[in-house]
Amino acid sequence: MTADVVVAGGGVIGTAIAWRAAAAGLDVVVVDPDCGEAASMVAAGMLAPVSESLFGEDALLRLNLLALRRFPAFAAELEEATGHRVGLRREGTLAVAYDPGDHAVLARLTAFRRSVGLDAEELDGRACRRLEPFLAPDVRGGVLCAGDWSVDNRRYAAALREAMRAAGVRAVPDRVVRVRTRDGRACGVQLAGGSGTGTVDCAAVVVAAGCWSAGIAGLPETLRDAVRPVKGQLLRLRMPAGMPPVLSHTVRATVRGTDVYLVPRADGEMIVGATSEERGHDLTVTAGAVHDLLHDAMSVLPVTSELILAETCTGLRPGTPDNGPIVGPAGPAGLVVATGHYRNGILLSAVTAVAAVACLTGQRAAPEWEPFSPRRFVELVRSQ
Amino acid sequence: MTADVVVAGGGVIGTAIAWRAAAAGLDVVVVDPDCGEAASMVAAGMLAPVSESLFGEDALLRLNLLALRRFPAFAAELEEATGHRVGLRREGTLAVAYDPGDHAVLARLTAFRRSVGLDAEELDGRACRRLEPFLAPDVRGGVLCAGDWSVDNRRYAAALREAMRAAGVRAVPDRVVRVRTRDGRACGVQLAGGSGTGTVDCAAVVVAAGCWSAGIAGLPETLRDAVRPVKGQLLRLRMPAGMPPVLSHTVRATVRGTDVYLVPRADGEMIVGATSEERGHDLTVTAGAVHDLLHDAMSVLPVTSELILAETCTGLRPGTPDNGPIVGPAGPAGLVVATGHYRNGILLSAVTAVAAVACLTGQRAAPEWEPFSPRRFVELVRSQ
Repeated sequence: MTADVVVAGGGVIGTAIAWRAAAAGLDVVVVDPDCGEAASMVAAGMLAPVSESLFGEDALLRLNLLALRRFPAFAAELEEATGHRVGLRREGTLAVAYDPGDHAVLARLTAFRRSVGLDAEELDGRACRRLEPFLAPDVRGGVLCAGDWSVDNRRYAAALREAMRAAGVRAVPDRVVRVRTRDGRACGVQLAGGSGTGTVDCAAVVVAAGCWSAGIAGLPETLRDAVRPVKGQLLRLRMPAGMPPVLSHTVRATVRGTDVYLVPRADGEMIVGATSEERGHDLTVTAGAVHDLLHDAMSVLPVTSELILAETCTGLRPGTPDNGPIVGPAGPAGLVVATGHYRNGILLSAVTAVAAVACLTGQRAAPEWEPFSPRRFVELVRSQ
Repeated sequence: MTADVVVAGGGVIGTAIAWRAAAAGLDVVVVDPDCGEAASMVAAGMLAPVSESLFGEDALLRLNLLALRRFPAFAAELEEATGHRVGLRREGTLAVAYDPGDHAVLARLTAFRRSVGLDAEELDGRACRRLEPFLAPDVRGGVLCAGDWSVDNRRYAAALREAMRAAGVRAVPDRVVRVRTRDGRACGVQLAGGSGTGTVDCAAVVVAAGCWSAGIAGLPETLRDAVRPVKGQLLRLRMPAGMPPVLSHTVRATVRGTDVYLVPRADGEMIVGATSEERGHDLTVTAGAVHDLLHDAMSVLPVTSELILAETCTGLRPGTPDNGPIVGPAGPAGLVVATGHYRNGILLSAVTAVAAVACLTGQRAAPEWEPFSPRRFVELVRSQ
């Protein structure tokens, strides 16, 4: 099998890149064990640039803000291409605080949002409950973040897969184990063998396999070492028959120092997430995590106890030492990396696709990407 | 299709009856939509006659004690017949108390056990933790109930199904909707139609369909009205790889007035149960129930938080107005009822099978069954 480009990894990052690369006229093959069905199932789909970047991570914040600005047009094009809605919700996020300590955290968030020019409308407890009548009486106050949206991650991922296939991308249900090179250039990939194909010859390879990117030989060692799995457990709840939606905004809460988010979906589902655990590739659902998520959700939204626990999910975010993604050329010519998106995979997917295609077609990526080049990890090691 | 006996319902009660009836020489057909696979999946398998009967329910206690005495021989015969172990555990139950109010409840239980001649060894907190080192430091004390055993309900149910089939019982994957009569005698059953068979002709019918017995026409109305579904949610937890078992006894705890039980299995599983809810035939798993079960389990056994939440289950117990089962001849000649076992289906399965076969073969059931005849509901109505 031959192609212009092989994309290793079929999650939202890989499929978004494959779609845009095919739209740019390239012949693309995506390699993924389950063609991305599994990975994209575990996410909340929040598009919240500020609350996902920590104080001091200014470069990441600038990138996230770029991503938020670009997302609606990308989603609109995707909906246009497929005829499917991806569930973009523009109601905004209501961040609420539970006790005085939580309130102090919220005040810092508000100041930070305003310092970067984002909306942040302070509300007392009563105003919060006017927006979301089911919030607990204990909720002291909150901040309405009008620009923080959400998307239905499952619809979004399914639309990306459909758009990609419609654009002529071929999907190979296998796993890339090695990037092959000849004369210092990437020239193909070796497959684990599930499909029996063995290899795919190509002119360029994009490694977009999330935390599994670390397992692909042929990538610079220091890059492989930079990506680690960060386990996240989340819950999918459903309204019982006849119950109206209990939430209209995404609610982020700090409950006695612990963050929990509740993301409503148009179909009546509600996502509650998420843990953040350093447990290697462990994908088990643990009793303690489910308890804590339910406990925190019920603290801010007591009616949660009446909802149906439809699903418990675990996913592995690709974490990096500086919490920033790793996108750009790496190692041999023709090799592009697009991983390390950590908690921002969905938010960053659109701009990552554009940046990766720019790399493949010899164009410049947006300047916001400069700090997130794979070079920073290679240089880090050299300077030691 | 014809048979000597049709058993409507293939849960543990139905399969136990079918097995013993076939062993007594009768030609038996069992009718159940999924041949009992589903119903018997949801249970903890505790064999605990006292803690499952309330003060004042003396007749039920006598029946439960008979059931406990007879269970080991029945289980041994089942293991002999099938070559499979059913996971009978004789370590006993450790009932523990969390706060002073819980301790008072425990003291009443102890006095009650002793009054009926059962073992009840009082232990202080330290002695409890010597038996079960993972118990929380908050556990104030407990009582070791040496005679309260447990059985692996899934293994037990699977063995009953196998023994039943080996004894020549035919299983029809359908649902009985009506008991047919001729000249005041049961003469067959009408099926819902899933299998296309339509009817089965027979000389006797045993209705053992749990709370679904209420939906079978041809049963006296007052009997149908006496059986209601009582929803129970429970959790199945597993040890992570490499973790030794965290419990060796069944632990029953009263945590701030709420009962929770933790039942260890030989294969490292641990059952946590159970809610008791009046919600009709609703089978949803609710966020509040899962939270409360995990919370109470973690209160007495903190290590629970590290376990894997393998499964959330819901079942419907067949409840009755007096919490007692309904076993014996009912209405037309040749019709036997065996339902209403509420929380004691597994404990009572062995003696119920013996009693039902006694009815079918014209023998007398044990005197402990006398108060649990279907007549009590029919007479109740007549006297109004």
